[in-house]
Amino acid sequence: MGMETSGLREYLDGPYKAARDVVRAGLEANPELLDFAVTLPTDEYRDKVLELLQQITAEGHPARGFPKEYGGEGDLGGFIAGFETLAFGDLSLMVKAGVQFGLFAGAILHLGTERHHERYLADAVSGRLLGCFAMTETGHGSNVQALGTTATYDASTGEFVVHTPTPSARKDYIGNAARHGRMAAVFAQLVVGGETHGVHCLLVPIRADDGTAMPGVTLTDCGPKLGLNGVDNGRIVFDQVRVPREALLDRYAQIDAEGNYKSEIENPDRRFFTMLGTLVQGRVSVGGAAINASKVALAIAIRYGDQRRQFGAPGSAEEALLLDYRMHQRRLLPLLARTYALHFAQAELVDEFVRIFGDGSSEHDRRALEAQAAGTKALGTWHATETIQTCREACGGAGYLAENRLATLKADTDVFTTFEGDNTVLLQLVAKGLLTDYRESFGKLDPLGTARFIAAQAVEIAVEKAALRPLVERLRDVVPNRSGDSADPDAGLRDDGYHSGMLRFREEHMLAGVARRLKAGIDAGDEPFEVFNRCQDHVIAAGRAHVDRVVLEAFQAAVADAPEEIRQLLKDVCDLHALATIEAERAWYLEHGRLSPGRSKAITALVNELCAVVRPAAVELVDAFGIPGSAVEVPMVVPSQHE
Amino acid sequence: MGMETSGLREYLDGPYKAARDVVRAGLEANPELLDFAVTLPTDEYRDKVLELLQQITAEGHPARGFPKEYGGEGDLGGFIAGFETLAFGDLSLMVKAGVQFGLFAGAILHLGTERHHERYLADAVSGRLLGCFAMTETGHGSNVQALGTTATYDASTGEFVVHTPTPSARKDYIGNAARHGRMAAVFAQLVVGGETHGVHCLLVPIRADDGTAMPGVTLTDCGPKLGLNGVDNGRIVFDQVRVPREALLDRYAQIDAEGNYKSEIENPDRRFFTMLGTLVQGRVSVGGAAINASKVALAIAIRYGDQRRQFGAPGSAEEALLLDYRMHQRRLLPLLARTYALHFAQAELVDEFVRIFGDGSSEHDRRALEAQAAGTKALGTWHATETIQTCREACGGAGYLAENRLATLKADTDVFTTFEGDNTVLLQLVAKGLLTDYRESFGKLDPLGTARFIAAQAVEIAVEKAALRPLVERLRDVVPNRSGDSADPDAGLRDDGYHSGMLRFREEHMLAGVARRLKAGIDAGDEPFEVFNRCQDHVIAAGRAHVDRVVLEAFQAAVADAPEEIRQLLKDVCDLHALATIEAERAWYLEHGRLSPGRSKAITALVNELCAVVRPAAVELVDAFGIPGSAVEVPMVVPSQHE
Repeated sequence: MGMETSGLREYLDGPYKAARDVVRAGLEANPELLDFAVTLPTDEYRDKVLELLQQITAEGHPARGFPKEYGGEGDLGGFIAGFETLAFGDLSLMVKAGVQFGLFAGAILHLGTERHHERYLADAVSGRLLGCFAMTETGHGSNVQALGTTATYDASTGEFVVHTPTPSARKDYIGNAARHGRMAAVFAQLVVGGETHGVHCLLVPIRADDGTAMPGVTLTDCGPKLGLNGVDNGRIVFDQVRVPREALLDRYAQIDAEGNYKSEIENPDRRFFTMLGTLVQGRVSVGGAAINASKVALAIAIRYGDQRRQFGAPGSAEEALLLDYRMHQRRLLPLLARTYALHFAQAELVDEFVRIFGDGSSEHDRRALEAQAAGTKALGTWHATETIQTCREACGGAGYLAENRLATLKADTDVFTTFEGDNTVLLQLVAKGLLTDYRESFGKLDPLGTARFIAAQAVEIAVEKAALRPLVERLRDVVPNRSGDSADPDAGLRDDGYHSGMLRFREEHMLAGVARRLKAGIDAGDEPFEVFNRCQDHVIAAGRAHVDRVVLEAFQAAVADAPEEIRQLLKDVCDLHALATIEAERAWYLEHGRLSPGRSKAITALVNELCAVVRPAAVELVDAFGIPGSAVEVPMVVPSQHE
Repeated sequence: MGMETSGLREYLDGPYKAARDVVRAGLEANPELLDFAVTLPTDEYRDKVLELLQQITAEGHPARGFPKEYGGEGDLGGFIAGFETLAFGDLSLMVKAGVQFGLFAGAILHLGTERHHERYLADAVSGRLLGCFAMTETGHGSNVQALGTTATYDASTGEFVVHTPTPSARKDYIGNAARHGRMAAVFAQLVVGGETHGVHCLLVPIRADDGTAMPGVTLTDCGPKLGLNGVDNGRIVFDQVRVPREALLDRYAQIDAEGNYKSEIENPDRRFFTMLGTLVQGRVSVGGAAINASKVALAIAIRYGDQRRQFGAPGSAEEALLLDYRMHQRRLLPLLARTYALHFAQAELVDEFVRIFGDGSSEHDRRALEAQAAGTKALGTWHATETIQTCREACGGAGYLAENRLATLKADTDVFTTFEGDNTVLLQLVAKGLLTDYRESFGKLDPLGTARFIAAQAVEIAVEKAALRPLVERLRDVVPNRSGDSADPDAGLRDDGYHSGMLRFREEHMLAGVARRLKAGIDAGDEPFEVFNRCQDHVIAAGRAHVDRVVLEAFQAAVADAPEEIRQLLKDVCDLHALATIEAERAWYLEHGRLSPGRSKAITALVNELCAVVRPAAVELVDAFGIPGSAVEVPMVVPSQHE
């Protein structure tokens, strides 16, 4: 990491630099962990990961995020930043830490009350009490409300009976379950006096200190996975397992000794979503981790492309560097730009998370945060899959060897797109939230909201109608700074307002379109599920359009706030991101009369040009991520060490 | 595999049904091999793969492809079909077979002469002599002409001295090198009397019968890889290794005892490409294998989507099947359709391969075959990566477990996009071939070619110019069966001629555009490499457009030839493929005035509709691939076996 990148690196590290640096130092001190995924038998690898996990607790990373009264520092932002930084190292360690501190300890903290905190939290945060987060079942992943596991209250003994009634209600893919976990936070249908109150969470011991399963608990290993084999994912089956009444994490619903159920939240749906909402930290963290894993892959592939030569001008003495080829730039640099965009969007999300979980806040704020977390997680994890794949291909056969790390990164991150919420389901959640806002602002006849709604509709109708007018005339209307035939089709293409305006237009137009289609279907008397299903691809695209806009605007704000010495470079990268995003969606813009063919081609040409502008700074841009050397100085990048 | 699919299956199997069935039976008899990738230590896995390799030689699969005089059957088409079928099983076995029979024995057959055939071929084909194909070096992959290894003729002893002059000339990623190979077909710069004659191939013993390296040969292991760990890829360094003059595979160039070099092909470039061209079988085979690996992933994911329920109409007793969701159909069914398209394109390629290698043929034919093989390999392998990734995500957490096979498929096939020719380089090769045809037909003033060239130019200029005319008027010109404003935007959308016309237009327009840009750059006096590099993304897109069209037309021809009882189903699948392809490229069509916004949206709507049309036949369509049950009946699809 050269000195010249320090301004950029400091700016990327932001307010949580110290938390990041603690984890960086820990990773740098344990470079051998990066090899264990391929050199150790599974159980030894898992035990090594556990050892490292306990070491990072000693260094204070997880405690940082918990309340001071349980040995923590109450620094939520630093906690998440530290977790993200773990993604620069072995991802099994990161996921194991996420299970233990984020999910298991997080469930105790957010869903439990003082007695649970007093009794378990310090041990969970210190890693003395290893736990599972037993939500997913073989038959139910995303549809958590339909879980099959039951926790039936037996008033005669004051106990809950936890049970797996069918094979499909088996808890599945549960981290820490196959080998290390002693206790599980189990999500189950709460049944009291014959009445079901929906999904609640209870703490259930699953393994004795000697490692054997508790009576009535069957623990099995999920076996080898594509990646993350340092995490002991397993299956849990409960056969009438009894736990005391106090095992219920009862922040949002309580049962008294007589077996009376009560909750301050009467509506069962709202209660369920409130409980689930406290677990948003998991999604915030996974999104950040995925973005950081992309950084590692790009750092490796871009350094390789800056060293490796292939073909070249006939007759020239030397072959050309891979990264000087247009196609190579095209493959890697827009992904680098999007990584920067997502980095800043993630930083904004973490700030918002800290604000909302720190100060308490309105339910509306919390729903908005959940949607933002869901959207950033979906885009961040798909981005990681695409980026790491592209980097692997851009490094050819060398990229396929484990020693060059891209293989492990690829295998380990692959599941991110479907765990902590399947991405397609998450984008539906984003879109549904926005549509609810829509309906609310319209329903409540809030004057500003209604006005915006109507104005947006008017604009889009105008643009649609314009489809039959000559192109040149339409362009004069919709493209700023453009007049008449002879104007430069590049005019305004690097304008921030043009970029965000394009993305906002798309978002609003798609949302309005979905709203209209849904309403028309319902008005026509069609079955609501059918109406929704007909529009499902449109709903998901609208969710994505929203997140695209939020991500771009986060990057633009970060450019505006940047120190002067790095602002122009960041602006170039931001423009590359903005225009590559518009280019990727140019079919939609062309269909909706918002781009002329000429301007669409001009955008493609400008993306090429911006790739060439950014290329000389490419290595500096990846160095600024501050990835520990052991993670990126792989043999193909530093070949002299291996020959 | 139900009876109802037999018509479809027979049609897919085509003329090489017997060769496929032999391999199917072999795989079905050895289901345990599918587990070895995750259950065995690397060396044991490798040895098991070797054992199976020798078993399939006993069953006659590889011999099928070799001349009768060396124990074979001379059935090239059956040989490739059998190889493709190996992709239904463990892919390490398939790749190991490819290295041994396709590459090593293939080099002896195609580049050697009778004495090499007599001495080695029967042993290579029977698997008694295990060999390597030592082409790629650490510093040179795609640019084979720049290899660094030297083979210098020493006239005083009548020997070649094979040597690795620099670390970057080390042979790398060589299958069979780390453990099993005894001999290598080594590609090296041939130096005779101080003069370099370019890359030639020699047979060099690398390992003694006791498994130790031969004197002067250093063999190391490439170590763990993302996948294919049943293949022992290694590195070879030669330190002045002496082999007799007869070691040169001398079909295209000979050295006499006095050290005089001669070749019937005087131009060194032409000689090089002629030698390389004989190895086209590797690319043909890898493309077919990738397409078959996609079939396995689709068979698993589609069966899962047809069984697994999630969410559903509020209040309904049962959740909905995944495959009844629009988004799920959208993700999987166009990929299924493209798999069918690629299957028929591959069958056509194999027919052409058999024709050209069977009868002898013109150099022009061989170049055309090489381009077709390169293009099918590029599209087929990228398709596999995309399809298997999508299938994994569509199966959520279950898809991440090794027991459900998608993880292994993903890891094993990932390298296909970069081995046997990096896909981006291959598409350049395709485009360059077409541009050469262009130049030739123009240069030779062949009247028909020139006329077509000029006509194509005229059409495209007309379309470009039309950009300023009102849309509605342009559409009347370019869209068949459409007149005036009120016409149905769906008109003709399921017309074969419309589909292929659209793809042909795109191909020709892009090629002409690239040709014009290249010519303009050269005419302006710019450095040719720079001119090329500026257009590189355009060149690659043109190559892809060509292959897209070839693939579609192969599918259309297969529909036309299909037995009547399956023709309508295939036509639906073909239309889905055609329209999804046009949809994916609709930005380009909109930019070039070849789609109106309304028609573009109509295509999207029709793709959705065709997904729903094909959905009821989805399981039948994957059953028709005839994949052995052990390969697709994974726990998540047959859960009762595991609960």
